[in-house]
Amino acid sequence: VTFVDLLRETSRRNRSLLCVGLDPILEQLPAGVERSPSGVLAFNRAIIEATSDLVCAYKPNSAFFEALGAEGFEVLRQTIAAVPPGIPVILDAKRGDISSTAAGYAYAAFEFFGAHAVTLNPYLGGDSLEPFTRYHDRGCIILCRTSNPGGDDLQAARMADGRPLYQHVARLVQTRWNSAGNCGLVVGATYPRELAEVRELCPDLPLLVPGVGAQGGALEPVVRAAVDRHGDLAIINASRSILFASADADFSAAARAETQRLRTIMEDIRAQLSA
Amino acid sequence: VTFVDLLRETSRRNRSLLCVGLDPILEQLPAGVERSPSGVLAFNRAIIEATSDLVCAYKPNSAFFEALGAEGFEVLRQTIAAVPPGIPVILDAKRGDISSTAAGYAYAAFEFFGAHAVTLNPYLGGDSLEPFTRYHDRGCIILCRTSNPGGDDLQAARMADGRPLYQHVARLVQTRWNSAGNCGLVVGATYPRELAEVRELCPDLPLLVPGVGAQGGALEPVVRAAVDRHGDLAIINASRSILFASADADFSAAARAETQRLRTIMEDIRAQLSA
Repeated sequence: VTFVDLLRETSRRNRSLLCVGLDPILEQLPAGVERSPSGVLAFNRAIIEATSDLVCAYKPNSAFFEALGAEGFEVLRQTIAAVPPGIPVILDAKRGDISSTAAGYAYAAFEFFGAHAVTLNPYLGGDSLEPFTRYHDRGCIILCRTSNPGGDDLQAARMADGRPLYQHVARLVQTRWNSAGNCGLVVGATYPRELAEVRELCPDLPLLVPGVGAQGGALEPVVRAAVDRHGDLAIINASRSILFASADADFSAAARAETQRLRTIMEDIRAQLSA
Repeated sequence: VTFVDLLRETSRRNRSLLCVGLDPILEQLPAGVERSPSGVLAFNRAIIEATSDLVCAYKPNSAFFEALGAEGFEVLRQTIAAVPPGIPVILDAKRGDISSTAAGYAYAAFEFFGAHAVTLNPYLGGDSLEPFTRYHDRGCIILCRTSNPGGDDLQAARMADGRPLYQHVARLVQTRWNSAGNCGLVVGATYPRELAEVRELCPDLPLLVPGVGAQGGALEPVVRAAVDRHGDLAIINASRSILFASADADFSAAARAETQRLRTIMEDIRAQLSA
């Protein structure tokens, strides 16, 4: 089964567009969780167990695991292994390197860690992505328009044809890089108008949308802009608002409640769209 | 001592613009070296020992270590620790992530691994680089023009002012991102004319130049274009032609001979420049 099919099936089965970002920060671990690599693993497992019937995907960010040192590597592998079969895992690594080196990263992401998809940086161009896209059953989710303020520095820069660079990237993915049908795009939730433009350029690609805050109100334009014409293939990510919903021993129940809350808001929006 | 000072001092002391890229590939390890993480470490140590009086820097590429699994993390740390004090180590990781996550990568690169500099991807913009540049004594070497064919896809795309994107990046570094004076740029050896353009835009920045092949002839325009007005701050990287100079037990002597050969060619060019 391909990443895109797995994503669509999970999203429909769990009736959810919500992806939980697994970004563990030692200093923010709740009371009762040991501030160590094994504590992080136990925390991640508890979060996954509490939310796995409510999500469309999980997205561990590799930086937080690397920051744990050598043990972080194994914690990341075991975190991914703790996700029940049938739920896609997107390894958020934002890799970008030349072909021979990229092959090493692709091996690590897909074979060693067993992720179903990985996030990638487009700056090095098509041949840097090919070692990933050649895994036809895995997803390659390419940075297009990121949610941070500095994203403007390159991504909003105007090209000779008057379009911003992020649209150039969206068109490259749509017309050239997605030849195996396994690409997606990252577009931040902070720019719903631009999200809608990217969805128009790439009607059938999964869109991974980080940057959703704790406030539900802002979700409506994001969900409307991100879903495809069937109301699918939007991956709306929330991390800290779920992981650290409570600083106490009830953290996993609080994470479940917040996941449920965000999921319900989004499903209500989705129901209106199809009505 | 800052990265730039350390680089300049090492380059003058060793009379070398040559950086040895530590990109160990299990399948290509020479005869007599175990094809395992500990074999890779022993190989790296032998290469470093054979070349450390002939180089201006070492550049381990993190992808090859990650491909070794959890042990690769420790092999990378110990490889960096095996470099004699006084020689800068550039961790080639090409990171790029949003600020909070970037802080995790910066910690890993500079504090856990103890690298003197790191390569970074500019696609996410200035605030994604800030967690690295705030380490004022470390170097932040930003991808500008890469040596792979696909580099054209984004980097050569024309902006509204008619310039290619890589020049937009060079100007951002020169005018905004280098406020702490610790940035550099990656510019591939395959484009000596573009290298000269970048050197003109950024007269005082270290330029890391990968893509030098085994043939010495092509080195001349590269060295001429890459050095600053004092003949310094060019970091010309060679990896496989040195690491795998021999497939036999004499690999470290062969690596030394190839390092010596490339260094001498470049020093002769540098001598002509200052004559």
